[in-house]
Amino acid sequence: MLLQVALYFAGSYASYAQETDSSVLRKFYTEALSHPVAYNRLDHLCNQIGGRLCGSPQVAKALDYGQKVMESMELDSIYFQPLMVKHWVRGEPASGKVKAKGFEDLDLHIVALGSSVGTGKAGITAKVVEVKSFEELKKLGRKKIEGKIVFFNRPADPAPIYTFDSYGGAADQRSQGAMQAARYGAVGVLVRSLTLARDDFPHTGIQHYADSVQKIPALAVSTNDADKISFRLKNDPELNLFMRTTCEELPETESYNLVGEIRGGEFPDEVIVFGGHIDSWDIGQGAHDDGAGVVQCLEILRLFRQLNIKPRHTLRCVLFMDEEYAQRGGAAYTERALQLGKKQKHIIGIEADRGGFTPSGFSIDASEQVIKKIQSWKSLFLPYGIWSFEKGGSGVDIRGLKQMGVPLVGLVVDSQRYFDYHHAASDTFDKVNCRELQLGSAGMTALVYLVDKYGL
Amino acid sequence: MLLQVALYFAGSYASYAQETDSSVLRKFYTEALSHPVAYNRLDHLCNQIGGRLCGSPQVAKALDYGQKVMESMELDSIYFQPLMVKHWVRGEPASGKVKAKGFEDLDLHIVALGSSVGTGKAGITAKVVEVKSFEELKKLGRKKIEGKIVFFNRPADPAPIYTFDSYGGAADQRSQGAMQAARYGAVGVLVRSLTLARDDFPHTGIQHYADSVQKIPALAVSTNDADKISFRLKNDPELNLFMRTTCEELPETESYNLVGEIRGGEFPDEVIVFGGHIDSWDIGQGAHDDGAGVVQCLEILRLFRQLNIKPRHTLRCVLFMDEEYAQRGGAAYTERALQLGKKQKHIIGIEADRGGFTPSGFSIDASEQVIKKIQSWKSLFLPYGIWSFEKGGSGVDIRGLKQMGVPLVGLVVDSQRYFDYHHAASDTFDKVNCRELQLGSAGMTALVYLVDKYGL
Repeated sequence: MLLQVALYFAGSYASYAQETDSSVLRKFYTEALSHPVAYNRLDHLCNQIGGRLCGSPQVAKALDYGQKVMESMELDSIYFQPLMVKHWVRGEPASGKVKAKGFEDLDLHIVALGSSVGTGKAGITAKVVEVKSFEELKKLGRKKIEGKIVFFNRPADPAPIYTFDSYGGAADQRSQGAMQAARYGAVGVLVRSLTLARDDFPHTGIQHYADSVQKIPALAVSTNDADKISFRLKNDPELNLFMRTTCEELPETESYNLVGEIRGGEFPDEVIVFGGHIDSWDIGQGAHDDGAGVVQCLEILRLFRQLNIKPRHTLRCVLFMDEEYAQRGGAAYTERALQLGKKQKHIIGIEADRGGFTPSGFSIDASEQVIKKIQSWKSLFLPYGIWSFEKGGSGVDIRGLKQMGVPLVGLVVDSQRYFDYHHAASDTFDKVNCRELQLGSAGMTALVYLVDKYGL
Repeated sequence: MLLQVALYFAGSYASYAQETDSSVLRKFYTEALSHPVAYNRLDHLCNQIGGRLCGSPQVAKALDYGQKVMESMELDSIYFQPLMVKHWVRGEPASGKVKAKGFEDLDLHIVALGSSVGTGKAGITAKVVEVKSFEELKKLGRKKIEGKIVFFNRPADPAPIYTFDSYGGAADQRSQGAMQAARYGAVGVLVRSLTLARDDFPHTGIQHYADSVQKIPALAVSTNDADKISFRLKNDPELNLFMRTTCEELPETESYNLVGEIRGGEFPDEVIVFGGHIDSWDIGQGAHDDGAGVVQCLEILRLFRQLNIKPRHTLRCVLFMDEEYAQRGGAAYTERALQLGKKQKHIIGIEADRGGFTPSGFSIDASEQVIKKIQSWKSLFLPYGIWSFEKGGSGVDIRGLKQMGVPLVGLVVDSQRYFDYHHAASDTFDKVNCRELQLGSAGMTALVYLVDKYGL
């Protein structure tokens, strides 16, 4: 602690109270754990507004709400960054049915994947080919695939400890399944939900088409149903699958990133930016993904205000639009930063988008020197269970800043439950624990405080 | 890793395969995360058997089930350790009501505390004195307390990061509230539930009487109701509180610890003991407390069997009886160990009794030398998120072994949600995440493996 105290006295900005860093951090945590402000805001986002699909009326309401919250904190500056977003709508609830010899009909728990085309009102019925990989698809070839629905059924690997690795290892089926299957004449794809849970919730998420091939409907099915379909296929390879979705893409529409700032007392043009994404998928409430990150980043501002700490650098909270669909909010933010060039410097970018669970560390995308600087603060974080400070990715919305050499950080949290809820109807407010959420708020606030005080 | 490999080759026991420790640990984790055996066992304990109050038919069923599970693993030895336990029964569901001027009647979410006497069938009605501490009680004195119900309403402090510290700071009200209030002539006590959550669940738990004073009924009320009573008292200090419970203590009855062993190939009389407690409170399912610890400890045996690792020392899994009421299972185990004296040596004792949440470390009650030895394995645990190896308490059931100089360890897990469910009707199977549970199983198995291989 002595070192930090010494460094403090070497600093020039008088508004930092003469107390140790460990004492300030303790105050952040006590305030965060004692008052459920962020938790109540998440309650509003989830239960009063709900799922916030990019381009939807709900996401517009969420922006209004975010603005009101920022206004209540009497920030120095609140503004919108306009951008155009795609506007895909889900239409009527998707449905699916399997008719297999020797089995009762199976009604499927099924949802359209984001950007999918519809099946037409009548739906489609076809025979099914189950595959586990694109290599398998290639081996089967057009002859065995044409006119059929391709069923991608490779489970996520349970062995990784960090479940984002399990997710990453199975995500190709969702993101590229339709474009790959269309090359061989498939009429649609059904993808096993990207989760380690075995349950009845289908998980949506973005998928991409290729310009060179037919756009075919792409849907996700719950893991329980995926297992049932696979079992039926073993007994009746000729079974029929029906699926129906009326989703469609409407014309692009204007939307916004929302920005709130506390101006830096010493270096107003040097910015510490932190954010989460205000949009979410529509079938749940976007509680962990990413209502949690949104209210945590707003909470950073509240904690500075509450402790009456005036930062040296500008603290900027960004509620990013469109992380889920086309990441245009992050792109618009980066574009604006590039335009400003040397008029404004980003000291660091921090993103919270891994769920509102107990934090364990920071994933740092920066030079070795910056990583070492952040690691030098480790002893201050250990009493709060934040122990891991490793090189790694940050977040989708801020990653564009890397081209400007900005050090980037992602808040790392316990990932065990995240994909149980991710992009599913079960991603609701009741799945978030107030204390776990607030440990993340306070942890990021502590990092912002130290970066603001000592630089990087 | 080289060091560990070198140490291995220096060892003499041939049954350890020639692979690195990190490779063995990876296999434990992969097996644990890939097969929900322990999770399914917990499902059975919770949903087929339910709450397992000491002395109850349910806890007898749970012992039967534990025996069957052990038999299915073809252990070298399975036996019961008999002991006498108290047999308190809850009787009819407790009820309570507050009648205050200017308010509608308030029906309370209320339960009897363990070992409480009943109120009689008619219940008791009295005026209420709210206090936050025993000092306050003393200040008020007999004149203001006699004939009243004392309402202990000091909330648990939300500031500690490790919630067991919050719990510990408020627990005196539950454990000693009745005996303290009786000194001043109170007719009963109502205690704010020991939880950081604000909800409608009352939390039970043991309380103690003193021989020198009257035994008065002791009940717990949900935190939401506690706040409501307090608010009403401010407006109507003369309000009436009714409460009723028909709980009572029956004659003592015989019960058992259940023990299962894999005999050590090299040192059969040197024991590595690990356990959780098979009894629980009765109003929930005892899922986190301590069904989780029970199935995790059984899982240690399964993982050794599954990987075909023959231990050098005897691995002993103990399902302890009566942790919640009078800790007689732990006492009986210690007594037996003392009787055996030098015929049997305990290398280490490990207890899992802090909920089935994501593990973060081991709390070690041992000499500095032993702590350093365990800390020397830290790099093997870090890939699995186990990072904290600190001096601290172990567990209630094994702590008696300390007098024999046995190094003791408690599995430390993320504590944020534990007291939301602890001793409440909400401690049910659905609150346990399979992966979080299994990370604890594998983490303890890894520790057992390393202790068995290298000693302490």
